Amino acid sequence: MNRLHVPVSLRWSDLDAYQHVNNVEMFRLLEDARITAFWRHPEAEDPWPTAILDTGPHATSHTLVAGQQIEYLRPLQFSRDPVRVEMWIGSLGGASLEVCYEVHDGAPGGFARTGPPSGAEPYTRAVTTIVVIDAASGSPRRITPEERAVFEEFSGDPIEFRRRR
Amino acid sequence: MNRLHVPVSLRWSDLDAYQHVNNVEMFRLLEDARITAFWRHPEAEDPWPTAILDTGPHATSHTLVAGQQIEYLRPLQFSRDPVRVEMWIGSLGGASLEVCYEVHDGAPGGFARTGPPSGAEPYTRAVTTIVVIDAASGSPRRITPEERAVFEEFSGDPIEFRRRR
Amino acid sequence: MNRLHVPVSLRWSDLDAYQHVNNVEMFRLLEDARITAFWRHPEAEDPWPTAILDTGPHATSHTLVAGQQIEYLRPLQFSRDPVRVEMWIGSLGGASLEVCYEVHDGAPGGFARTGPPSGAEPYTRAVTTIVVIDAASGSPRRITPEERAVFEEFSGDPIEFRRRR
Amino acid sequence: MNRLHVPVSLRWSDLDAYQHVNNVEMFRLLEDARITAFWRHPEAEDPWPTAILDTGPHATSHTLVAGQQIEYLRPLQFSRDPVRVEMWIGSLGGASLEVCYEVHDGAPGGFARTGPPSGAEPYTRAVTTIVVIDAASGSPRRITPEERAVFEEFSGDPIEFRRRR
Repeated sequence: MNRLHVPVSLRWSDLDAYQHVNNVEMFRLLEDARITAFWRHPEAEDPWPTAILDTGPHATSHTLVAGQQIEYLRPLQFSRDPVRVEMWIGSLGGASLEVCYEVHDGAPGGFARTGPPSGAEPYTRAVTTIVVIDAASGSPRRITPEERAVFEEFSGDPIEFRRRR
Repeated sequence: MNRLHVPVSLRWSDLDAYQHVNNVEMFRLLEDARITAFWRHPEAEDPWPTAILDTGPHATSHTLVAGQQIEYLRPLQFSRDPVRVEMWIGSLGGASLEVCYEVHDGAPGGFARTGPPSGAEPYTRAVTTIVVIDAASGSPRRITPEERAVFEEFSGDPIEFRRRR
Repeated sequence: MNRLHVPVSLRWSDLDAYQHVNNVEMFRLLEDARITAFWRHPEAEDPWPTAILDTGPHATSHTLVAGQQIEYLRPLQFSRDPVRVEMWIGSLGGASLEVCYEVHDGAPGGFARTGPPSGAEPYTRAVTTIVVIDAASGSPRRITPEERAVFEEFSGDPIEFRRRR
Repeated sequence: MNRLHVPVSLRWSDLDAYQHVNNVEMFRLLEDARITAFWRHPEAEDPWPTAILDTGPHATSHTLVAGQQIEYLRPLQFSRDPVRVEMWIGSLGGASLEVCYEVHDGAPGGFARTGPPSGAEPYTRAVTTIVVIDAASGSPRRITPEERAVFEEFSGDPIEFRRRR
């Protein structure tokens, strides 16, 4: 199983009055990782393998967050070193996908962009359901074969959350 | 079924580049509603019925967010009028509880603090699992009978999310 | 001298790890007050007297923040009660204006929308320089006589900051 | 004149509904640069030369932001590449200092931690007045000779803002 390993820098303002990264702010870190890894930027010279979702004012499609789930396992302290967000695709539908995340300490010697699961207990596990939208019609559109091939390269098991709802 | 009806003011900065309330920021609104309704503030003259969880530097207990789940049903635009966050307790354990939320338009003529479900389709539905922690030991502590009696007054059915995991 | 008195709700997330409203977040509160008081919203039934600046996707003009200055006089704690942001126009140019602010405790019995300076020592004093932009050309445009008449009603002395630069 | 050159990563959430880095969020980037460069972190293996201000729960001193001023010269777009915040000390008092900033595009080939002014027109120029506080007494304390020597290494001319107040 191949995962994306995305470095995300913390900000001191991610801390709340308890001096840990705030539970809401954790979703901000995940958003940051997701945009880094998935969105195609016109200016990017060295894109991530998954950077295939168009964005920006002239994009022909965009994405919509339909739902999210998260589990906080350990409090995350502030550090100058970025965290490593491991990401994979837990489920791939016709027009939607589930992006899974684990937040880990960053590797001190730099980041390989992809790699196997680190195996350590993460700070947090989460999943975001994303729907791909056709910008012209505003309706969901099918994931293209090109997109599907890339996403399948990073497919993995869905997260089993401890609490079922 | 009795719900808390908590007004929460939007901020223009809750909007993202798509000009809707950002999906992460929605958790911020829910956090705000939760703290308004549940936390006891020394200065409060007119507390919410559920404002029974101690807080602040000398509190004997505090709370920990163990997990969250959310479903976005409709985009929320900026408005000067606060939204109405309807809250209830979907599940009550020994040391934990599940706070359920629906985000609705606010009533133009003011807010009753408690009331029945509004019945309209919400913008968002969500649940937060909270664990009550003894400040001295740092470990979960049992919900007291006094707290339990208040929470039971606002108990209701857990949310059935459309996507199961 | 007539001031706008704008209520702004705090959020628990405005606190930083020092458990005061964070110095950056203070600008967020001021932004919120400014947008409440100055921007015209299509949906607003009871606009502020100064709500004459068009906004939104079809607006013919928008505004640009050119600069800001702030002085923090006392730390602001979290409270359920909104703060009262007193606002006035410290300077009015051809295409720009300086919005002045003082942050005070809110009046317990509700807010008059306009009134004299409260006279108490504020938590914070600040000024924002705003330039009015023609949406079609992207260039500064002259403040109209209608806008000018409203702004002049709330004109007052510029803030004398303690530290000069 | 020697400046600190601090890389700061943007977040997509720094954008506001105008799709530029929000004017308030710009202070967030500056806060991030300041904390990266000045605060001593127990875990840091490779600290910045200026990382001499204690912090954290057991710190013997902390700092207080007394005032800020900013000028926005050009809108900043979202980019995957971090910006380069150039920082220097514009003024050094008995217990206070003025940290000056310019925000520039980041160098593509990596960051030298210190260097001369880049000379290009910045996106933003700003200054923060910081007071050093003795944690035990809560009062301002004198900047130590050790601290002063480091700050003087990065002293430079105060910023001349275009608009005087």
